[in-house]
Amino acid sequence: MLLPYHQSPRGSGLGEVKVMSAAVASIVLSILFGVWPCLGASQIRHFQWEVRYMYWSPDCVENVVMGINGRFPGPTIRAKVGDTISVRLTNGLLTEGVVIHWHGIRQFRTPWADGTASISQCAINPGESFTYRFEVDKAGTFFYHGHYGMQRSAGLYGSLIVELEDGKAEPFHYDEELSLLFSDWWHESMHEQEVGLSSIPFRWIGEPQSLLINGRGQYNCSLAASYQSRNSSYPRCNLRGGEQCAPYVLHVRPNKVYRLRLASTTSLSSLNFEISDHKMVVVEADGNYVRPFEVRDVDIYSGETYSVLLKTDQDPAQNYWVSISVRGRQPATPQGLTILNYVPTSASRLPVSPPPIAPRWDDFDRSKAFSKSMFSLLGSAQPPRARDRRIVLLNMQSKINGYTKWSINNVSLVLPLTPYLGAIRYGVKGAFDRRAPPENFPGNYNPMIPPLNPNSTTGNRVYTFLYNSTVDVVLQNANALSANVSEIHPWHLHGHDFWVLGYGEGKFTGGHKDEARLNLENPPLRNTVPVFPYGWTALRFVANNPGVWAFHCHIEPHLHMGMGVVFAEAVNLVGKVPDDTLMCGLTAKPRKD
Amino acid sequence: MLLPYHQSPRGSGLGEVKVMSAAVASIVLSILFGVWPCLGASQIRHFQWEVRYMYWSPDCVENVVMGINGRFPGPTIRAKVGDTISVRLTNGLLTEGVVIHWHGIRQFRTPWADGTASISQCAINPGESFTYRFEVDKAGTFFYHGHYGMQRSAGLYGSLIVELEDGKAEPFHYDEELSLLFSDWWHESMHEQEVGLSSIPFRWIGEPQSLLINGRGQYNCSLAASYQSRNSSYPRCNLRGGEQCAPYVLHVRPNKVYRLRLASTTSLSSLNFEISDHKMVVVEADGNYVRPFEVRDVDIYSGETYSVLLKTDQDPAQNYWVSISVRGRQPATPQGLTILNYVPTSASRLPVSPPPIAPRWDDFDRSKAFSKSMFSLLGSAQPPRARDRRIVLLNMQSKINGYTKWSINNVSLVLPLTPYLGAIRYGVKGAFDRRAPPENFPGNYNPMIPPLNPNSTTGNRVYTFLYNSTVDVVLQNANALSANVSEIHPWHLHGHDFWVLGYGEGKFTGGHKDEARLNLENPPLRNTVPVFPYGWTALRFVANNPGVWAFHCHIEPHLHMGMGVVFAEAVNLVGKVPDDTLMCGLTAKPRKD
Repeated sequence: MLLPYHQSPRGSGLGEVKVMSAAVASIVLSILFGVWPCLGASQIRHFQWEVRYMYWSPDCVENVVMGINGRFPGPTIRAKVGDTISVRLTNGLLTEGVVIHWHGIRQFRTPWADGTASISQCAINPGESFTYRFEVDKAGTFFYHGHYGMQRSAGLYGSLIVELEDGKAEPFHYDEELSLLFSDWWHESMHEQEVGLSSIPFRWIGEPQSLLINGRGQYNCSLAASYQSRNSSYPRCNLRGGEQCAPYVLHVRPNKVYRLRLASTTSLSSLNFEISDHKMVVVEADGNYVRPFEVRDVDIYSGETYSVLLKTDQDPAQNYWVSISVRGRQPATPQGLTILNYVPTSASRLPVSPPPIAPRWDDFDRSKAFSKSMFSLLGSAQPPRARDRRIVLLNMQSKINGYTKWSINNVSLVLPLTPYLGAIRYGVKGAFDRRAPPENFPGNYNPMIPPLNPNSTTGNRVYTFLYNSTVDVVLQNANALSANVSEIHPWHLHGHDFWVLGYGEGKFTGGHKDEARLNLENPPLRNTVPVFPYGWTALRFVANNPGVWAFHCHIEPHLHMGMGVVFAEAVNLVGKVPDDTLMCGLTAKPRKD
Repeated sequence: MLLPYHQSPRGSGLGEVKVMSAAVASIVLSILFGVWPCLGASQIRHFQWEVRYMYWSPDCVENVVMGINGRFPGPTIRAKVGDTISVRLTNGLLTEGVVIHWHGIRQFRTPWADGTASISQCAINPGESFTYRFEVDKAGTFFYHGHYGMQRSAGLYGSLIVELEDGKAEPFHYDEELSLLFSDWWHESMHEQEVGLSSIPFRWIGEPQSLLINGRGQYNCSLAASYQSRNSSYPRCNLRGGEQCAPYVLHVRPNKVYRLRLASTTSLSSLNFEISDHKMVVVEADGNYVRPFEVRDVDIYSGETYSVLLKTDQDPAQNYWVSISVRGRQPATPQGLTILNYVPTSASRLPVSPPPIAPRWDDFDRSKAFSKSMFSLLGSAQPPRARDRRIVLLNMQSKINGYTKWSINNVSLVLPLTPYLGAIRYGVKGAFDRRAPPENFPGNYNPMIPPLNPNSTTGNRVYTFLYNSTVDVVLQNANALSANVSEIHPWHLHGHDFWVLGYGEGKFTGGHKDEARLNLENPPLRNTVPVFPYGWTALRFVANNPGVWAFHCHIEPHLHMGMGVVFAEAVNLVGKVPDDTLMCGLTAKPRKD
């Protein structure tokens, strides 16, 4: 039989093909704009992108997808440390604004390029263009995505990979690399999903129809139909490889070490990643080195990235399953599959065994064990020993006027019309509520049961931190509105990495027992971290990046329902904010001259 | 059997119910805003509206619809001549801008309130509010609708009815009135439709799934299932009357005269309106009195309104069909149906005969005969005898870079990012192409065959008219891209009524024969007029309204594809343009103080 696969030239994996195309695009565009990229040293990498809706079949079902330059996912950006990325983004949508957030890039000295509507900039109007220009100052695996409404759910995302400077070496060896961007996909449009979330009665978006690997999944057929498996209700895929939904096959050579760059931009799903019969060594998380540890599978939450090393040491006459499965929620979505193909074995040869079976979705102990096995690589930056301030953020499902919301310390975030950065930088009055938001939740609140009073309020206050102060944040999970429900929330911080000091069960009290759980020796640096059901997660960062930064649950519908807060630090030290980030709300005025 | 109907209190027709609710809303909102509407004399009628997407089932199939204050269609506005309408419109969409155009209202002295994105104002950003404040200076049947992207197709529309001042009488008698707003409905979202129109290969939106009367139609069932008819493939409707798709029954009393106010806000469809066994007398068109003439049915094009008088002189023990059917295009949509119910006959009694059969869709002679039977009422304003200028606008289907477009004199309209009104009023440079657009098309162009060179260009130039000059426009139809295809285009002019001087066949030459066809004695005043296949339509207006005004085909996808032009007149006489119409493009600048 012919196994469907995505044909890539020279069988070297589409990661490299994408490298080529990104590089070529960069050069072509540089020529177009009269800038010849200097070779060798750090350079400005120019891109010209247009966002448009287009027909696409991510999972073999045609849909309308938000694409960039006619592609889904958007083009991969590859750069080297010290490079400047310059993306001139044209909004080719007809009535919708757009922004793009560069997830994991800290935007030192360019907080206006963070791509968060209502925070760092005004949304780019239809037909308008905006240039994101920022330095990539750290190597690692990143991605980018829409950050306005739920446009990430519409498919607005792509990979962003920063390599070390020439001559510098990673603290681990690998021969080649492959890049895998994971997402989940619904057949209902982003607009339909938003309406459901904003309706009475509340309509949840439900579980995704498909899981996608590099934008490719199979909804109405299965690569593994020949096996007895959870996918067996679907017929065998009849794909030749050129289809938009043909799987992204990982072509590898035997006895090499591959760096797999994993990134999850799911709207909702926590994923478990596994390759049959292969172990992996985790070496990077969110652009930071971790102490290598070996695993059979990787839990990856929305907003997280990893690099894992894969040794192609299995029987090269066979192919192997590459699988992502839903964890943390009762799955109703077939696992996402593709093939690890040992070249020159035919990519159409099916693996001998059925796809791997994911760990039980509700085996949270296993999930915690994975998260807790993460430590920073020896020699990494250590956290300051003492904090200057600690805020505790209660993750609470709530009701406002009958609508279902998520609230933090009883406040559901509704972003203001005027972006915070410009409003604060230029002292514009009336743009948002200047009062300080709550630092904690009431001491008598019991997070182990549904809220006794689920009514919360909307708000847009800002947590303001002293420049260079050390801030601890404790994310406190709680029971949702329904009894015996508490969900995983992966929290993502803009503008910073943070140290994950520790995880705990139940209610954080700040007592000796809780403090004892905090790791100040070798905590991993990350930009995204989960808070587990009925538990808490403590993190620490230094407020050393002048700007205004979102900190939020990376589950798209949760953010939409208010699950986030806003941090500001040393905005007076921010340079001149570009005019075209200010052209809305109270930071705009008419030009009549 | 129980005939489904929309229950209305006191059986007096929903027109009056809507009168009540609009009036109550007006009073309630006036109180809210501390303005007590003075009774009797002209008043300010305050409305507070929020546009949001919502679940709705216009034709018994659930969809996402753009509603106002949770209703579809939006609330009916009723006012009296001399009143000021004040609608504070809040954009409750998440990522989309919005505007509302008040179709047929000339906006003397308030051109910024015309509600055309990129022409009269910047689109209202998500979360922002804008107040449309304008005087209604003329009685008539009007409506309102979105005028940004294809938001009219998403369901953003409603009725606007202006009554005579107290004490003034219409030149015809009627006892009561009913208001019917016609539209066509697709199950594909506006976004999906837009993508198809902007794709290569081009995907046409196709014929509508349903025709709606006051926002109500039946897709998967038929009111007329018991009869042998074109609807017979659908099962009988099982509706009780409370459903969103239950028909809007016209409750009437015997031996009365009803004024039926008809308005068509279809995206595409030309309609034929008929009531079984009843004749009607046409008395008003687009807010202007016409010489009364009796008809069995009325052709109504998108953008047109009529008042017809209906005498309830038939057997009051029966009910009668009210029907709209597609004309001008090969229909693929069941006729839209509701019931004329003679109270106190049960509204659930089915008519004795099947619904009326519409005139053949391609009987254009019949359509022309209807249009040509329209004359202004004796005593109406007459056109100036001589024109100051004549422009001829070729309606041409075309190609641009492989995309299918509509072009006027070989230019497909792409609106600029900065609204014209502010740009011209304040002399902002670079907002659009200041060169004059073409006044005519090449003399050797043969409109009877497909374009020999279908390639056109995009443009945004403006036709500028001297203040108070008399302008003639000749709309010249042509063969589309495919052989033997020429479509009806209903053209709508903002800011003005125009006299319809005449219709002709073939190519307009301006010769004696064409001139002889022009009626300068009693041409009807309108704001919308069709140009028929392979023919031309001549109209005249006086450029007496300082402002910038769209003139375009009212078929939503045609406008989207570029089928429009822009007129400007005496913009130097326009008053102070409100700041909040200028907050985009080149008429905005940052506020940093």
